[in-house]
Amino acid sequence: MSAVGLHRVMEPKGVLPQAATRLDTDPAIGPDEVRIAVERLNLDAASFRQLREEAGGDGDKVRAKVLEIIRTRGKMHNPVTGSGGMLIGTVAEVGPESPLGLKPGDRVATLVSLTLTPLEITDDLMAWTGTSEQVPCTGHAILFGRSIAAVLPDDLDDDLALAVFDVCGAPALVERVVKRYDRPRVAVLGGAGKSGSLALAAARRSGAARTLGVVPTTSEKLLLDGVTLADVTSLADARDPVATAAAVEAALGGPADVTVVCVDVPGCEHGAILATAPGGTVIFFSMATSFPAAALGAEGLAADVTMLIGNGYVPGHAATALDLVRAEPGVRSLFRARLAAH
Amino acid sequence: MSAVGLHRVMEPKGVLPQAATRLDTDPAIGPDEVRIAVERLNLDAASFRQLREEAGGDGDKVRAKVLEIIRTRGKMHNPVTGSGGMLIGTVAEVGPESPLGLKPGDRVATLVSLTLTPLEITDDLMAWTGTSEQVPCTGHAILFGRSIAAVLPDDLDDDLALAVFDVCGAPALVERVVKRYDRPRVAVLGGAGKSGSLALAAARRSGAARTLGVVPTTSEKLLLDGVTLADVTSLADARDPVATAAAVEAALGGPADVTVVCVDVPGCEHGAILATAPGGTVIFFSMATSFPAAALGAEGLAADVTMLIGNGYVPGHAATALDLVRAEPGVRSLFRARLAAH
Repeated sequence: MSAVGLHRVMEPKGVLPQAATRLDTDPAIGPDEVRIAVERLNLDAASFRQLREEAGGDGDKVRAKVLEIIRTRGKMHNPVTGSGGMLIGTVAEVGPESPLGLKPGDRVATLVSLTLTPLEITDDLMAWTGTSEQVPCTGHAILFGRSIAAVLPDDLDDDLALAVFDVCGAPALVERVVKRYDRPRVAVLGGAGKSGSLALAAARRSGAARTLGVVPTTSEKLLLDGVTLADVTSLADARDPVATAAAVEAALGGPADVTVVCVDVPGCEHGAILATAPGGTVIFFSMATSFPAAALGAEGLAADVTMLIGNGYVPGHAATALDLVRAEPGVRSLFRARLAAH
Repeated sequence: MSAVGLHRVMEPKGVLPQAATRLDTDPAIGPDEVRIAVERLNLDAASFRQLREEAGGDGDKVRAKVLEIIRTRGKMHNPVTGSGGMLIGTVAEVGPESPLGLKPGDRVATLVSLTLTPLEITDDLMAWTGTSEQVPCTGHAILFGRSIAAVLPDDLDDDLALAVFDVCGAPALVERVVKRYDRPRVAVLGGAGKSGSLALAAARRSGAARTLGVVPTTSEKLLLDGVTLADVTSLADARDPVATAAAVEAALGGPADVTVVCVDVPGCEHGAILATAPGGTVIFFSMATSFPAAALGAEGLAADVTMLIGNGYVPGHAATALDLVRAEPGVRSLFRARLAAH
């Protein structure tokens, strides 16, 4: 039995489930596995867009294609975009050696990608029109020993909980890093976004002496000022290193000890590095981060800063993030505003 | 006065020297600057290749083009490749507030890129044939407060010292990370290369309980076994996550506490993550590292590992690396073998 699911890989042999072209969806679980009765898939936005375009907007064709992918591959892994999505369901059976802490009847969301999750659909997706990323369905999925699933809370609606789970690695890692410093100054680039607002809330609760949210527009600044999640807010384009560093130093009275990058546009590496004090840490959460730009930028600026690739997984991250949402009305209102805008 | 040289930026105003199209090369230095009498430029390999191809292999045309770039931009910043190189020279004058610790007469190599170093050439590059990356020349260059330069040692030849400086961030960061653990197990992917061999030597001297060098070919394994830099060596393709993790676990008796990636090919992120124990650290030094592959890989594998972007700058890194080369005959012989092969 492999905790990462190697025993479920059918083709090609010996690769990780994400790299596999076909997974074994056998509902009989191993000792450390969990079977989920699936209720809904959330397709990745890029995947759904590609499927819809390929089908010329025809929902029946989209549905047929998704069914074909799942039947052929044993997982919802779009072969064109390479992306998947996540699912919601109810725990049906838990192996005696599962480390996930789930019990039958728990309503959960998976926090690992559908691209590595064995999945079988039994209702031909009959309840889905093929015109939305939300796919109501019946079937089963398998979680491995090292999969991640979070129990959906009773007190928050599904959409809010899922939006929080989507970025829940950020506050957990920020908490861990901030606690390594003694009353650090913390700057969050993109502080009014989902991961940014959670990062600000986590920094304050973890002992930051002063927190700053940097945002690119006046409307985002008003939004962030209104929820008082940051001790101070500043306007700056995070792609402009000199302006960003100047804004941070002015607002915090010096460079930041911890800088968190939550801006999902390329080119924010040098500003984050320049805004950070020697001995400080930059945490990059944006998928638009360029590894060479960060590595060469720090060298070119002779910046003795620790640069972390924002790991989406920290044990307990989902619970930490939900607690922040419950405790911080500011986080809740920012998330609700974003959900309403969609 | 700006420690990162903003006052030397002429066009466009307000950007960092690397992003500038033209720098001020005035030989009169500011209080925290240093002027270097230049002896040789080492053009970046990608830059020289592009220049040679553009000139159809004509050395005179290459020389004219390099002269034009330096005169127009005030720095050797190839506008096509975006890359520069480094230089060797002698310290001519040191501003009273320079923090670099240099004194007139020191023979130095710059460890920051030529793309951000003000440079003026006074001999029309007459001594250069335009057919090699090594450009003998006369002129001056300016270092800022936060530039980095290393004094060339008397006891090692220039080529060896430059090859060491090129990767000197690796052993310094490995030392820092290994010391955070209590007798950790350390795996170095690409252990027979320049940064890999220095990383192995640094890990052993910093208290690693056991060090492993992972290499892709039998010839590299023989090379690494011959210099006894690693306690144990293994053959594995670092792009194959399952094989890499299995090789590491077999050689170290379990996953690594610290995994160092020195393999300059894409696709090594998942293997490094899978080979690392919960609570461990992965240090990525390869410029071929994909930020999203690392971030999403750790999440997909539910891996609670710290992932560091290998910062090329750690204070004292050049001296640390030279000390390793002096103390470790194995490192010296690997470097000399690589230099001889060129």
